[in-house]
Amino acid sequence: MSEITVNGQKKLVLVTGRAHPKLAEDIARELDTELVHTDTRTFANGEIYARYSESVRGCDAFVIQSHTTPINEWLMEQLIMVDALKRASAKRITVVAPFYPYARQDKKGRGREPISARLVADLYKAAGADRIMSVDLHAAQIQGFFDGPVDHLFAMPVLLKYFKEKLDKDTLTVVSPDMGRVRVADIWSDKLGAPLAIIHKRRDPRVANKVSVHEIVGEVAGRTCLLVDDLIDTGGTIAKAAEALKAAGAKNVVVAATHAVFSHPATELLQADFIDEVVVTDTLPLTADKLFPKLTVLPIAPLIAGAIHEVFSDGSVTSMFDGAA
Amino acid sequence: MSEITVNGQKKLVLVTGRAHPKLAEDIARELDTELVHTDTRTFANGEIYARYSESVRGCDAFVIQSHTTPINEWLMEQLIMVDALKRASAKRITVVAPFYPYARQDKKGRGREPISARLVADLYKAAGADRIMSVDLHAAQIQGFFDGPVDHLFAMPVLLKYFKEKLDKDTLTVVSPDMGRVRVADIWSDKLGAPLAIIHKRRDPRVANKVSVHEIVGEVAGRTCLLVDDLIDTGGTIAKAAEALKAAGAKNVVVAATHAVFSHPATELLQADFIDEVVVTDTLPLTADKLFPKLTVLPIAPLIAGAIHEVFSDGSVTSMFDGAA
Amino acid sequence: MSEITVNGQKKLVLVTGRAHPKLAEDIARELDTELVHTDTRTFANGEIYARYSESVRGCDAFVIQSHTTPINEWLMEQLIMVDALKRASAKRITVVAPFYPYARQDKKGRGREPISARLVADLYKAAGADRIMSVDLHAAQIQGFFDGPVDHLFAMPVLLKYFKEKLDKDTLTVVSPDMGRVRVADIWSDKLGAPLAIIHKRRDPRVANKVSVHEIVGEVAGRTCLLVDDLIDTGGTIAKAAEALKAAGAKNVVVAATHAVFSHPATELLQADFIDEVVVTDTLPLTADKLFPKLTVLPIAPLIAGAIHEVFSDGSVTSMFDGAA
Amino acid sequence: MSEITVNGQKKLVLVTGRAHPKLAEDIARELDTELVHTDTRTFANGEIYARYSESVRGCDAFVIQSHTTPINEWLMEQLIMVDALKRASAKRITVVAPFYPYARQDKKGRGREPISARLVADLYKAAGADRIMSVDLHAAQIQGFFDGPVDHLFAMPVLLKYFKEKLDKDTLTVVSPDMGRVRVADIWSDKLGAPLAIIHKRRDPRVANKVSVHEIVGEVAGRTCLLVDDLIDTGGTIAKAAEALKAAGAKNVVVAATHAVFSHPATELLQADFIDEVVVTDTLPLTADKLFPKLTVLPIAPLIAGAIHEVFSDGSVTSMFDGAA
Amino acid sequence: MSEITVNGQKKLVLVTGRAHPKLAEDIARELDTELVHTDTRTFANGEIYARYSESVRGCDAFVIQSHTTPINEWLMEQLIMVDALKRASAKRITVVAPFYPYARQDKKGRGREPISARLVADLYKAAGADRIMSVDLHAAQIQGFFDGPVDHLFAMPVLLKYFKEKLDKDTLTVVSPDMGRVRVADIWSDKLGAPLAIIHKRRDPRVANKVSVHEIVGEVAGRTCLLVDDLIDTGGTIAKAAEALKAAGAKNVVVAATHAVFSHPATELLQADFIDEVVVTDTLPLTADKLFPKLTVLPIAPLIAGAIHEVFSDGSVTSMFDGAA
Amino acid sequence: MSEITVNGQKKLVLVTGRAHPKLAEDIARELDTELVHTDTRTFANGEIYARYSESVRGCDAFVIQSHTTPINEWLMEQLIMVDALKRASAKRITVVAPFYPYARQDKKGRGREPISARLVADLYKAAGADRIMSVDLHAAQIQGFFDGPVDHLFAMPVLLKYFKEKLDKDTLTVVSPDMGRVRVADIWSDKLGAPLAIIHKRRDPRVANKVSVHEIVGEVAGRTCLLVDDLIDTGGTIAKAAEALKAAGAKNVVVAATHAVFSHPATELLQADFIDEVVVTDTLPLTADKLFPKLTVLPIAPLIAGAIHEVFSDGSVTSMFDGAA
Repeated sequence: MSEITVNGQKKLVLVTGRAHPKLAEDIARELDTELVHTDTRTFANGEIYARYSESVRGCDAFVIQSHTTPINEWLMEQLIMVDALKRASAKRITVVAPFYPYARQDKKGRGREPISARLVADLYKAAGADRIMSVDLHAAQIQGFFDGPVDHLFAMPVLLKYFKEKLDKDTLTVVSPDMGRVRVADIWSDKLGAPLAIIHKRRDPRVANKVSVHEIVGEVAGRTCLLVDDLIDTGGTIAKAAEALKAAGAKNVVVAATHAVFSHPATELLQADFIDEVVVTDTLPLTADKLFPKLTVLPIAPLIAGAIHEVFSDGSVTSMFDGAA
Repeated sequence: MSEITVNGQKKLVLVTGRAHPKLAEDIARELDTELVHTDTRTFANGEIYARYSESVRGCDAFVIQSHTTPINEWLMEQLIMVDALKRASAKRITVVAPFYPYARQDKKGRGREPISARLVADLYKAAGADRIMSVDLHAAQIQGFFDGPVDHLFAMPVLLKYFKEKLDKDTLTVVSPDMGRVRVADIWSDKLGAPLAIIHKRRDPRVANKVSVHEIVGEVAGRTCLLVDDLIDTGGTIAKAAEALKAAGAKNVVVAATHAVFSHPATELLQADFIDEVVVTDTLPLTADKLFPKLTVLPIAPLIAGAIHEVFSDGSVTSMFDGAA
Repeated sequence: MSEITVNGQKKLVLVTGRAHPKLAEDIARELDTELVHTDTRTFANGEIYARYSESVRGCDAFVIQSHTTPINEWLMEQLIMVDALKRASAKRITVVAPFYPYARQDKKGRGREPISARLVADLYKAAGADRIMSVDLHAAQIQGFFDGPVDHLFAMPVLLKYFKEKLDKDTLTVVSPDMGRVRVADIWSDKLGAPLAIIHKRRDPRVANKVSVHEIVGEVAGRTCLLVDDLIDTGGTIAKAAEALKAAGAKNVVVAATHAVFSHPATELLQADFIDEVVVTDTLPLTADKLFPKLTVLPIAPLIAGAIHEVFSDGSVTSMFDGAA
Repeated sequence: MSEITVNGQKKLVLVTGRAHPKLAEDIARELDTELVHTDTRTFANGEIYARYSESVRGCDAFVIQSHTTPINEWLMEQLIMVDALKRASAKRITVVAPFYPYARQDKKGRGREPISARLVADLYKAAGADRIMSVDLHAAQIQGFFDGPVDHLFAMPVLLKYFKEKLDKDTLTVVSPDMGRVRVADIWSDKLGAPLAIIHKRRDPRVANKVSVHEIVGEVAGRTCLLVDDLIDTGGTIAKAAEALKAAGAKNVVVAATHAVFSHPATELLQADFIDEVVVTDTLPLTADKLFPKLTVLPIAPLIAGAIHEVFSDGSVTSMFDGAA
Repeated sequence: MSEITVNGQKKLVLVTGRAHPKLAEDIARELDTELVHTDTRTFANGEIYARYSESVRGCDAFVIQSHTTPINEWLMEQLIMVDALKRASAKRITVVAPFYPYARQDKKGRGREPISARLVADLYKAAGADRIMSVDLHAAQIQGFFDGPVDHLFAMPVLLKYFKEKLDKDTLTVVSPDMGRVRVADIWSDKLGAPLAIIHKRRDPRVANKVSVHEIVGEVAGRTCLLVDDLIDTGGTIAKAAEALKAAGAKNVVVAATHAVFSHPATELLQADFIDEVVVTDTLPLTADKLFPKLTVLPIAPLIAGAIHEVFSDGSVTSMFDGAA
Repeated sequence: MSEITVNGQKKLVLVTGRAHPKLAEDIARELDTELVHTDTRTFANGEIYARYSESVRGCDAFVIQSHTTPINEWLMEQLIMVDALKRASAKRITVVAPFYPYARQDKKGRGREPISARLVADLYKAAGADRIMSVDLHAAQIQGFFDGPVDHLFAMPVLLKYFKEKLDKDTLTVVSPDMGRVRVADIWSDKLGAPLAIIHKRRDPRVANKVSVHEIVGEVAGRTCLLVDDLIDTGGTIAKAAEALKAAGAKNVVVAATHAVFSHPATELLQADFIDEVVVTDTLPLTADKLFPKLTVLPIAPLIAGAIHEVFSDGSVTSMFDGAA
């Protein structure tokens, strides 16, 4: 008879919902491991079911899900997966949501609105999540919506690496598509050592309630314009900005964004003549019908896998970004 | 100058999601009031938005939603509506979910499963719900999943009233479609003063892993059989039970259920010859393609409206059911 | 000077309340360890005191208590023990409650009742319990009452092993003592490869408010009937069922149950002639006056010790039961 | 059709556990109302059940229980009653615990002890209590154990009124039975305008681990000594103090305490010759065998009823005690 | 004897900390009531004490505090006041913090930083606050940091009213002092019907790590420039912006801000020649040494009093701002 | 490809606020490690900022702060540091508060007061603290204010060691400066084997509302009197007690206290002739102007470092004090 002690061991468990399995597999491959198989199903009436095929007791679990359409299905699936992990005695549960759902409803713009981005944080907490990992939050304040650690990753190093090899900074101008995204463009401008231009959407005084004038602030004539944004949804803003830039004499217009939401009619709009290239990451899945010749999709898995490795091994996520935040 | 006091006033506010607007309108009509208009929308990428058109400050709010397909959309919509009410200073928020979502995943049948019915209760709580009202929970224990009052309504009075007028209890037998629902059938048998029969699904010893024998316990030959259940989903169990009853000599087979989930291929199965009538309530919406001649849909709005009235006016919901629970 | 790091170590600590010390000692022996000595006392006015004789800092603690009469004393003692562990910096606290207290009050049968089984889960949580381990919950939904992992163990393997060696399945019939326990009997029937019979308590139409007819469904004449239930409290239901079985020609009546609550007058009733053997486990203590010749008590300690070992070493409790749930 | 608003109404509901029904009835009578009937029962295995006979929806409920032996039974009964009120939609629930259970375990005197008084506050909160009302807490800090309002009542006005009429302050000395209760005696001394004496229990240096010397500080010879304490449990301390006072020449020894716990052998000890009178309140029930000729029991119901009235009508409990705290 | 019911009454209670008593008095006067007297004191070692002189039981309390230097003192005083209200049974507690403390630390700009604005929300919640009211939050997302209703007021109507009477919109240009505040300036531009200009602080490529160039985008020569911001802290940004505007030919430079933090050396900088007028509100107290001839201070009390009135009487705060949000 | 597991490692991280850096450095030195550098700053408007220079992910963090004037600044700084640790994924956070802030406001002495000591515990919890470590709490009940482990250290061994070497127990008398601290003096008396005396502050019956008589109970003439208390704030009580002792013939008066708050005019009062020596620990910083020849300051760092070591290594803090509690 003896006192029973064992050395504590930490086991990494990666699981994924059904929204973007390729991303999860890529992350697993980067980490040189495999996803724990999960039996996820949708019943006839739309209810979702999930069950893990192996024991997850005591593990450090990462639940990967990409919040593409149908976004509420995938959010609910992820919540159910977190609940199952909690009840199966996982030691720590990290929600990996590369594109944070409902990030744009981050405040009450008017009275009697929800703050859905906070609600989502509360739902994750209620289900049992201990931590959140996400990429390029629409507003950095969303970190403060969750009562626990949030690892906020930046896709900029991934995108920058691509552009540094490809674009000539002497003929480059970084462009913000509207007033609200100037801060992001400012950082790009700084990192690339290229000047900044801004597109100012103004109300046309002659037409009520209509934004019609796209005023360009900064020099764009004869230059390669890099239009940067965190996400492209329907593509309207970007397309109009590109059109205005070409009208103002821009030589090339290249679009860069982290999250390719690509709701209808984004794919169509982005193939317009006045856009020369679109570069995004694969935080969201892109079905074949959303791909087009001018589109370049950069893999985000190495970044996320790196962060998971740091989190699991008590390393430093901050040090992955040298001042990039 | 004076001390400021006012008499407390309670204001009833009814709002509804988009899953089953007719039910909400019927409830409002029963209460002789109107729904507070809500601007509910789905954005291009599937995110849902909600905003109330009038002040809901200090009100006693009831958020009505029916959890039909796409069930996760409607659950999320309801959660967002609750969040918006909470942040708009509603005094008390009652979730009205006539058909409780995920009620069938109420326990871990096997290891590493979720308990989604508990998760749903936690999500409602996280969003800000103070109370829940529901009809015929799949398991009464779900009341204990929510940390607060749950008003559990019973559709039985609605259904009983219909059958008492229509069926002759001397030739009637109440039938439970399987072993798991015997308790409910037992109550029906008692209320109607009619004998009970049970259908026992047994594994056929000659065929592995297959339920093939439907054994009938009790007398059914020459009688009108009332098959009772809380819900009809794909209709498979009910259809096989009805077939077995007719094969055993039943004269008529009438089916009664509270929740008409009617997932494919329920509508088809329920129109089989060996079913004479199907009676349900409208806790869930039934689109035109799900209606058929032998189907009778009883309105549940009077019951829910009655309960809302009791809750709002601090009356008694219990007394609405004389021992019916 | 140096950075201070140590390897994490986990230490298992078993402690027990005073309700059923033998069970705790058996569990410790199975695990090849000893209980941490606890100074538990009841003061003159009935208040309970507990103090651990050794440091429990950082340990993985299991607090064993059996909820026999006086059940509220033992529940309160366990809560006090959990509080003391929490304040003494135990790392993780698992409540081991082989017979979950108040399990039968798991829903509001009528208005204005408590849901005491949920209350108990809340009290454990409030005291500081992280996890619960229990055997054969009266309703599996109780798992969902606790906001954390519940390890739900099944005594069936223990009981089955005994019966497989002893009973001849060719002459065996599994019997459910009432409609409410049919599901459990169904599993037994399946595991033993024996047919099923059910006893249906019906109201006698000639006598108001009285259950008097015990109708037997299935063949029992000339057979060995195995009456199965999760618990035996006063023994009334079981005794009447056994009497009815013998009256219907059963050759032998053997009773199997997990929890031997044995409230008065169970011991007397179970010794009736029409019962040939009673087999229970020792989840609850049985004082000498409750033992009788026809009673067999199987040890539950190996099962619980096995589960504690799996929980402590991050193994799998699920895999202890191959589809038994 | 119209907007639905009603004037808010508050309804007072008094309910009681079974520990001390007379006190609850006295409180109801003082308030000129009746207790809401509650069906409270103990099942064969010791589990307690409670159900209210009338609707309590929206009410302001006060749950009265006296924590006498068996104290854990009565605590659990009260928790169950609170749970039932919460689930029956009571608007606000106040626990009335005239003698706060486990008040003496209010700190960790040594390592690995519980802080049971805090645990009790947590259990009340977990069950659903919004507020606590108690009389003469053993340590005032217990107010800080509950996360919500605590109405701390003082029995002193009740006791003082009795003594002011009966004792001559010119020959009176207030005596603290030990060092730990000096503060309370100091307030009495002040209120009665009488000098203070203290009994100092000292270790006898000649005998290890034994408190044997009762040193009296202050003048007591020829005087009426009023020994004051918050509670009398087994009576040992008080009896020894009285004996020491008489040995030091005290003319009379009168004992005053709020809570008559009277555990064995208190009744015997308090009837000793050197005690002339014992005055207590009825916060705890006293069965006939605990009464004796020299005992005076003052009713506490008027005080509690007064406080309930203030709480219910948003008056002031503080103003009931003019600086008495 | 009778059932006890009373009509619910709501009582408004206004209390204030010691940071800015004049503002609280102004609010009370606007509401035609008086502040409830509070005994607030700082002990010798810096600990703060607060006690209300009247009963606050059942009241709807608003705790007004302005977070000026020493900001942590005033925050702690407010938390203590909230705790005292909670324990004194106030029914609802609203924190009125016209200038939300720590609003600028609303995200982790770099790893291992706090999110102090969220922490403040959590502290308010922990102390017992039910609601928060604030004016012009530095980031609207802070609304989402609090788990409950936040009434976000806008000072713009107060400031606009002043400027509409005073400035000629035909010669007016609204100017944003840096990229980060463009959105606010955009709204002003819209409301005043005046064009927008922006000051872009750029790094001077010749000097490392130094922002030295203030580029002006938009026409300012010969115009009256209205520099708008939510707060003025040390005044450095505003002063440099004003200097740049005058250098670019601006005729007049008027500064408008809601919160006059005025840390050293703001008062000095704002009196520079190139600033013609500074207009602020009195959300924060301005001592005599911080006033100067060109400074206009507009009263914020009417706005806050109006909102308190709406909140207390279940009216609408949203409707106070017609699309101003 | 392989399953990823690592051995769990625990890393100790010590950080400190700016109130008493020397104490934190001493603790680090005792532990043979270094403080993790923290960038702590106060901005112009008084807001505090903190950021850790190294990764603290997964660490066992101890946040040391001494709560001296300005006490609210230092409390807020500590809360901000805890928030930053929580968001940076520290595994466990222990607040080290040698002098617990607001410990004296540990109950409602009168109605409508706060219980600030409980509030402080709630604020620590809200910020993210898992545990608290403190020295000589003013009331031991404060342990019960925190919902988690509190390591309550005793300075007595440190002080006793000093006095045992220095004072002759045969001529020594331990003195309690007032009735409220008798218990502490009693323990000292016991540990030193010296008799006890008490100073009783009585109201002078001839002067209303004034404590003027300092009555000495016990023998002090010709003896060395050791006046013991947990803290010295303004020094008034101690100075008057010393004066009374000398007046009663005491030969020497030595003062011992754990916490040297030393608010004005403590330093002056303690240098009076009738005090021969003052011995304190350095739980609080003492600036040069607070030091004086008769003052001896004993280091508390070894005690705190020892406790941190026990906590970190899952040892026993209780065993550091052999019955000293």
